[in-house]
Amino acid sequence: MSRWKCICAYDGAAFNGWQSQEGGGAVQDAIEARLARILGVPTRVHGSGRTDAGVHAMGQVFHFDADWSHGVAKLAAAIRSRLPAAIQIRSVVRALPDFHARFQATGKVYIYHLHLGDADPFTRPVSWVVLKPLEFRAMEEAASAFCGRHDFKAFSAFNGSESGGTVRNLRRFEFARRGRRVRITAEADGFLYKMVRSLVGALVAAGEGKLDAARIRELLRSGVRTPEVQTAPPQGLFLQRVIYQKTTA
Amino acid sequence: MSRWKCICAYDGAAFNGWQSQEGGGAVQDAIEARLARILGVPTRVHGSGRTDAGVHAMGQVFHFDADWSHGVAKLAAAIRSRLPAAIQIRSVVRALPDFHARFQATGKVYIYHLHLGDADPFTRPVSWVVLKPLEFRAMEEAASAFCGRHDFKAFSAFNGSESGGTVRNLRRFEFARRGRRVRITAEADGFLYKMVRSLVGALVAAGEGKLDAARIRELLRSGVRTPEVQTAPPQGLFLQRVIYQKTTA
Repeated sequence: MSRWKCICAYDGAAFNGWQSQEGGGAVQDAIEARLARILGVPTRVHGSGRTDAGVHAMGQVFHFDADWSHGVAKLAAAIRSRLPAAIQIRSVVRALPDFHARFQATGKVYIYHLHLGDADPFTRPVSWVVLKPLEFRAMEEAASAFCGRHDFKAFSAFNGSESGGTVRNLRRFEFARRGRRVRITAEADGFLYKMVRSLVGALVAAGEGKLDAARIRELLRSGVRTPEVQTAPPQGLFLQRVIYQKTTA
Repeated sequence: MSRWKCICAYDGAAFNGWQSQEGGGAVQDAIEARLARILGVPTRVHGSGRTDAGVHAMGQVFHFDADWSHGVAKLAAAIRSRLPAAIQIRSVVRALPDFHARFQATGKVYIYHLHLGDADPFTRPVSWVVLKPLEFRAMEEAASAFCGRHDFKAFSAFNGSESGGTVRNLRRFEFARRGRRVRITAEADGFLYKMVRSLVGALVAAGEGKLDAARIRELLRSGVRTPEVQTAPPQGLFLQRVIYQKTTA
């Protein structure tokens, strides 16, 4: 029995989130169905964490255990063949026996795409279309207020079940504009439930003049979510990368 | 009664081509249904030309006639509201009374996207994924052989119904690489049925060593299509722009 680590991309519009659901339709269900077919036994995959319905991934990571003696290239080819076109297996490597996609992740990077003004039909499914003008100076101040180690409870949909409390180290939260596109990057040691979408919602609220850096600091201190904090829609969000220390055998 | 000129984008995967079909499902059907609803009368739109099922557009042009006294901004807003998300109306302007989207077009620009090697789920629906290695020097020679005024019958699906014969002036046919992406641009005074996809198919065949510039010149002279000329798949193709002389009032 070996442990295998995979990196995959998926179009979130085609699935009911990452995590297996009753009734199927999750990315995990599609991958597990493929593995069961190849390996001949039910095979559980362990993702780095769930992504919500509609959220995309370019670098979701999962691991699984399998008896496979034909080499990694043939395993990769077997998984790739006949997976839905909305899932891409980007890499397969043999992992250390104690590698765990979720528990050994030391960080995650998410990308969020805003589009300023009406978007074409190829951009809409992967962006939040923002029609009101945004004040970028205010957004920069808001982004700075979020950076660093804080209790992010007020900017999450924390429901009491998160492990390790609600303090996270937001190592990077910044945006870059190119024409009508705004690309937001968020990197942290981990994210609470709906935290990235809440941060992005607050950033856009700051750009619209509804929230400023001072109020963001207050909310961070209070730990109480208020209606000022909107959740950005899922289709703009991509799980870009999961960060590990050395994981391969 | 005024004449109106619109530029629109659409995701070809969502429709059964541009042109109205029995049974509906064409881009034109969706736009005509919207116009009939706004204007209260059946309204025919005239496109610059058809695009096949699966082919996308960033700059398809159409015109229509309508009695509308509330100004162009309100007309644009009315058309945009409740159109399928896979269609974007990029602009609406009042045209000269004799403007015709098809007969007055003096040129068209198409873009075709190749992706070299396995593509992510966002790139696949808008590219031709080419897994074999390509020889770019041979492709450049092939592209040069196509440029200029030729009888393109051997590189089309000409069926005898085209107006104006089969000679076209290919003003520009070139490609640019960026990493694994190859962006092909084709501009001509007009294109025969399936001509861009045949040119792209020949370009890729040249890159694979199956066709060279000398043989392309022979085929152009012969006017006979052979199995050497494959038709590139539709999902990589975008109608980028239709060129007119002055068209607005």
